[in-house]
Amino acid sequence: MTPNAKTDNLVLRLWFIMHRTRDVLRSCEDKVFGKYGLTAEQYGVLAVMKVLGGSVRVTDLARGLGRSANSVSMIVDRMVKAGLLRRERDRRDRRTVRVSVTNKGEVAFRPATVAGLELIREITSPLSYEDKRTFVSLHEVVKHKALQYVNPEADIEEMGRNDITNRPDLVKRLRQYLSTSTGEG
Amino acid sequence: MTPNAKTDNLVLRLWFIMHRTRDVLRSCEDKVFGKYGLTAEQYGVLAVMKVLGGSVRVTDLARGLGRSANSVSMIVDRMVKAGLLRRERDRRDRRTVRVSVTNKGEVAFRPATVAGLELIREITSPLSYEDKRTFVSLHEVVKHKALQYVNPEADIEEMGRNDITNRPDLVKRLRQYLSTSTGEG
Repeated sequence: MTPNAKTDNLVLRLWFIMHRTRDVLRSCEDKVFGKYGLTAEQYGVLAVMKVLGGSVRVTDLARGLGRSANSVSMIVDRMVKAGLLRRERDRRDRRTVRVSVTNKGEVAFRPATVAGLELIREITSPLSYEDKRTFVSLHEVVKHKALQYVNPEADIEEMGRNDITNRPDLVKRLRQYLSTSTGEG
Repeated sequence: MTPNAKTDNLVLRLWFIMHRTRDVLRSCEDKVFGKYGLTAEQYGVLAVMKVLGGSVRVTDLARGLGRSANSVSMIVDRMVKAGLLRRERDRRDRRTVRVSVTNKGEVAFRPATVAGLELIREITSPLSYEDKRTFVSLHEVVKHKALQYVNPEADIEEMGRNDITNRPDLVKRLRQYLSTSTGEG
């Protein structure tokens, strides 16, 4: 086998396992969040809403989720029907639609976050702190290249600054919702 | 910050970035596979069909994808309508439905696999061979724990043997479809 073929085999394996891991993780999340009346997808939307804070334009929500505005609009529709989100017109620009989290969404989000953290603690428990850091770094590299690939024209440094996962207060904002936890923080 | 809080912060960060990376990767894949008339999801189904080989029961396809039979049934419906898959009754057990890849599906799959490998090569290009191996191993650990979590009753060793990403011939089966590549293997 040539070195290229060897690398290709590893790359194919990595590709498969990234997808498989995320699909299994999603099944875990559906199981956990289902107890609070949320799908994993809906929880993800609420989490990004909470990190962005307040009422959010659908375009910003889509950017935060790294998904197309169209697909996010459909998810938002279902979440409005389910009473988790509320749609409102922008006060300054009536053409712009904003969404915010309803009280029902708030009530579901808090214990779901506690349960979600418990899940992620559990499934990453065999990894040392250093392993976890390495895992984050490897994801960062691949995510950065993937963002470049999908938006070759974009200013990648600016995209990085706007990327929700790069926000220094990301974790802090989520940790607020862990206050019903055992207070070990 | 207590050691637990420090680990929780890292775990929350890892959780977010795993999702974000896969979502951006999915956007890249939709872009690449769209050239061959496939969504990323449809390509994933064809890839698992190809690894399993021949005509496949929907339940086995769902297991291969690590998704629920219900959601896979819906994807299969759309792919049958799009002419990518064909449904057939099992010859021995008429109650069992099997699916197989149509000629149209075959024609799309081959160049899509070449283009998909090109994409994954590109977005993992900053990682060394060792980094890639580490990335695979870290995914293996998390996937294993997640499988245990979602199926606490299941025999995890048997699940591992049945897990498509653990098949020793996984990469070999996919490499067959790379023969239209530049033949560098």
